[in-house]
Amino acid sequence: MDVREVLYTTRAMRRVRPDPIPLDVQARILDAAIRAPSGGNAQPWRFVLVDSPDLKGELGPLYRESIASLWSTFYRERLDRARADPEVPSNRSLLKVQRSAQWLADHFEEVPLYLFCFVRTAAGGAGSIYPAAWSAQLAARAEGVGSALTSVLGALHPAEVRSLLGVPDDSWDNSCTVSFGYPTGRWAVADRLAVDKVAARNAWDGELGFSASEPLWPKE
Amino acid sequence: MDVREVLYTTRAMRRVRPDPIPLDVQARILDAAIRAPSGGNAQPWRFVLVDSPDLKGELGPLYRESIASLWSTFYRERLDRARADPEVPSNRSLLKVQRSAQWLADHFEEVPLYLFCFVRTAAGGAGSIYPAAWSAQLAARAEGVGSALTSVLGALHPAEVRSLLGVPDDSWDNSCTVSFGYPTGRWAVADRLAVDKVAARNAWDGELGFSASEPLWPKE
Repeated sequence: MDVREVLYTTRAMRRVRPDPIPLDVQARILDAAIRAPSGGNAQPWRFVLVDSPDLKGELGPLYRESIASLWSTFYRERLDRARADPEVPSNRSLLKVQRSAQWLADHFEEVPLYLFCFVRTAAGGAGSIYPAAWSAQLAARAEGVGSALTSVLGALHPAEVRSLLGVPDDSWDNSCTVSFGYPTGRWAVADRLAVDKVAARNAWDGELGFSASEPLWPKE
Repeated sequence: MDVREVLYTTRAMRRVRPDPIPLDVQARILDAAIRAPSGGNAQPWRFVLVDSPDLKGELGPLYRESIASLWSTFYRERLDRARADPEVPSNRSLLKVQRSAQWLADHFEEVPLYLFCFVRTAAGGAGSIYPAAWSAQLAARAEGVGSALTSVLGALHPAEVRSLLGVPDDSWDNSCTVSFGYPTGRWAVADRLAVDKVAARNAWDGELGFSASEPLWPKE
């Protein structure tokens, strides 16, 4: 599949069917993920696939609790505002994400596959794990597999995740977790603020130098 | 270009020619980047392209100082060990990265383009900016443009970066910066630890369930 189609149409796909992901597809997803760069090429990562019903049954309640906590704390004010004025595009978008994430919480155990992404805490981080996680999502898209990234499990329940997955010690951080499955919805170009709303040149509000108010793919 | 070729061959390319990146190529890179997901689809990001010689002339010394500081602190022990035994593959890899990053430091002003990636601090982070930065690098690869990500400028010189780029306040974090240019070297599959060395299933050391000791592309 062409890389531009993949970059434009890989968006969070949380609603998926319970059908398993074949092992050869999983292998291609992981093999693409580990080509990503990391700080000093140290590859300070470890990836744990989870498809065991027992394990999903233990993790599901933790995810539901994490999500409920997000809604009632971090997102509370924004959700209240969004519900009060749901026709504003950014509000509609937030409510859509909220419903989608709640779907994942309610159906956590039915999602066929999760990828828990760990990075060595001392290796200093995000730049050494998120590119690999995002590559996994892009490689999955090319296989027709939907995915979504969450960081709440590792952030809100680090000790439980460590214990359930047998992580040897706290030198490893569960930076993020990706859910995978064949989507129930359709692929489409992700709806985003245009480049000229979020980019500039040589200064915070500097002229970009090109016009960028519409997606360049697939219309171009 | 096929997505697998892009995912397998996009690696840090710091040594680049001074030739400018055409504006239509820059537009396609940014337009792909902003399709990336972010927490709650909040898109809490701003991207500042830098190609002004004056600005690069101000940023270059900061990058050189940051890199020198990395070598003498964070990487010092590892570099000493690597120099003592440079034939060990992981040592050779670290020394290669060190030379490459030092090249970028020594030639900072000659690199044609930088992309400074900012995320709203309160929006909570890495998962809302690194996928976009990595998408920019992948989209650049498809255009024949090399790139490399660094986070040292924003980490070690946040106030100077804010001042030089006119960032309005400290609610924005320069999570990472990507350098871009037409590479002097060749594209190749990135050398990485195989999947079966860094991945498992249903437990930290659980059987993967498929064989994964060799790259699946392009040999497959």
